[in-house]
Amino acid sequence: MTEKKRILSGMRPTGPLHLGNLHGALANWAEMQDEYDCFFFIADWHALTSSYEDTSSINTYVREMILDWLSAGLSPEKSTLFVQSYVKEHAELFLFLSMITPVPWLERNPTYKDQIVQMENRDLSTFGFLGYPVLQAADIIIYKAHGVPVGVDQVPHVEITREIARRFNYLYGKVFPEPDAILTKDSKILGWDRRKMSKSYDNAIYLSDSPDDIASKVSKMVTDENRKRKNDPGNPDICNVFDFHKRYSDPALVDDISENCRNAGIGCVECKKKMGVSLAAFLEPIREKRMYYKERPEMVEDIIVSGSDRARKVAQQTLREVRAAVKITA
Amino acid sequence: MTEKKRILSGMRPTGPLHLGNLHGALANWAEMQDEYDCFFFIADWHALTSSYEDTSSINTYVREMILDWLSAGLSPEKSTLFVQSYVKEHAELFLFLSMITPVPWLERNPTYKDQIVQMENRDLSTFGFLGYPVLQAADIIIYKAHGVPVGVDQVPHVEITREIARRFNYLYGKVFPEPDAILTKDSKILGWDRRKMSKSYDNAIYLSDSPDDIASKVSKMVTDENRKRKNDPGNPDICNVFDFHKRYSDPALVDDISENCRNAGIGCVECKKKMGVSLAAFLEPIREKRMYYKERPEMVEDIIVSGSDRARKVAQQTLREVRAAVKITA
Repeated sequence: MTEKKRILSGMRPTGPLHLGNLHGALANWAEMQDEYDCFFFIADWHALTSSYEDTSSINTYVREMILDWLSAGLSPEKSTLFVQSYVKEHAELFLFLSMITPVPWLERNPTYKDQIVQMENRDLSTFGFLGYPVLQAADIIIYKAHGVPVGVDQVPHVEITREIARRFNYLYGKVFPEPDAILTKDSKILGWDRRKMSKSYDNAIYLSDSPDDIASKVSKMVTDENRKRKNDPGNPDICNVFDFHKRYSDPALVDDISENCRNAGIGCVECKKKMGVSLAAFLEPIREKRMYYKERPEMVEDIIVSGSDRARKVAQQTLREVRAAVKITA
Repeated sequence: MTEKKRILSGMRPTGPLHLGNLHGALANWAEMQDEYDCFFFIADWHALTSSYEDTSSINTYVREMILDWLSAGLSPEKSTLFVQSYVKEHAELFLFLSMITPVPWLERNPTYKDQIVQMENRDLSTFGFLGYPVLQAADIIIYKAHGVPVGVDQVPHVEITREIARRFNYLYGKVFPEPDAILTKDSKILGWDRRKMSKSYDNAIYLSDSPDDIASKVSKMVTDENRKRKNDPGNPDICNVFDFHKRYSDPALVDDISENCRNAGIGCVECKKKMGVSLAAFLEPIREKRMYYKERPEMVEDIIVSGSDRARKVAQQTLREVRAAVKITA
């Protein structure tokens, strides 16, 4: 029996998860659970890099996130689910890696440069924000992960993690594997306004939304803008609602919609209603699981604690090796 | 009974301690032990900011440093003597403080600017080196120290610690007192070449030097350079050897030397020999204590471990308050 390769990924607890997070990350993670030894963590310390001025929601978001994870199919039996701040060893490795990471590596980080420009109204230029790729590297290599499932925009972060791991190994002897980026299917899903679905655009449908919430959001969705009246024929190929149908409705309904849109046999209002029903049905088992866990906070806390205990054991072993390699033995 | 005020200071373990360290810091620390609740620590993680490329000596220097401290009068009964890396909570607080410290505060740190210029042949521009005032702030405020005994050149570091503590309190509520710099007597002592005594100038007399080492180093000392021949009268007021006499010889000998130097009644060779004897006698009890502890490594290890345990209890309590204030409760 060969050992499974280990992968690690995490999310910052900055709000409830939506369909974009589900199809862009969570669903991929859930699928990987049988093939890999998976470590998934909620990066609450990382949330401070952008939210240090208002931390009031971080803890709530951590709890909501674990509910979202569990309801979307992440399993505490199959995977190690944990919270970053429960494993203090991340901070110690962050310190060690800080000492060997040249500042220019961080300054040229594209996300850093982007965010500094984009968010000029916030005092993001903190030491911790500059160093978040160092903390991220610590998060990954502390578990000696072989791979990191990421979207294409995250590849530079994995690259800097590889560079930091390589530098550590060069200076102190080989302790860390260099993790590979595992590109996840980029399953783009648009919000009701046709922009990328995002909490900050306020255009998202959340895993925790009720059927009523869903119906209301779906009713606002932008359709084929050339179809002004119900009697005009529509073009489903350029309609976001039809994209949702393809994802969530059964094939017979999809064919039916496609035909009746083109021949003006169905209006957008009705089409959206049908799609809302399909989407609510798709989310129903997730919402039910969510309810189940939400009503059992002790069980959820236990999942977090025991997952974090498991992670900590691995992290502690790595830190023993790190201290021995750096010759700071304490 | 009013509680003693707490002070904290530390040294990086970069080599054995010399007379400059004794008179500039250690002797002051030893004196403060009755008046203050003293925390003194060996900053081994800090040693990485400049020595990350060669860490082979750090552990040896930690052990040598605690020997120097104990032999110079620091008492594990009176004070909390510990090693930074034994108290992992420093790393966690470093992480929290990183998130709130603006990069420009660090870039304008005079020591940072100086060292970047001075040491252009070494790759000092690491993230950890840029952030060492943040780690230093964590070291200090984690014990809620009221004061930090420092030389005048260290005052800017205490200032940035105060700024970081203030910013934390402003953002999250008052957890930390702002520590005051306690200026220690600046007891300048020159090396045998009349430059500032320093390990890096290779002009130092170490606490661990044997009487033979001392005699040999003293014999090389630069005296009044206007006194070319033994028959020329000398001027003790400009002679480094005479400064040493004033510090280490008994008053009768000092008077005697002063007179006989001015009237050419004693030559520099003999004068140095006498001073070497005085200095060796001054260092004798320190050297004996050093020998005592050096022969008892388990006792020394126990002092480090129990001091670090004491420190850790305080640090853990502070971190509980910090996590509650930041609302990262884990």
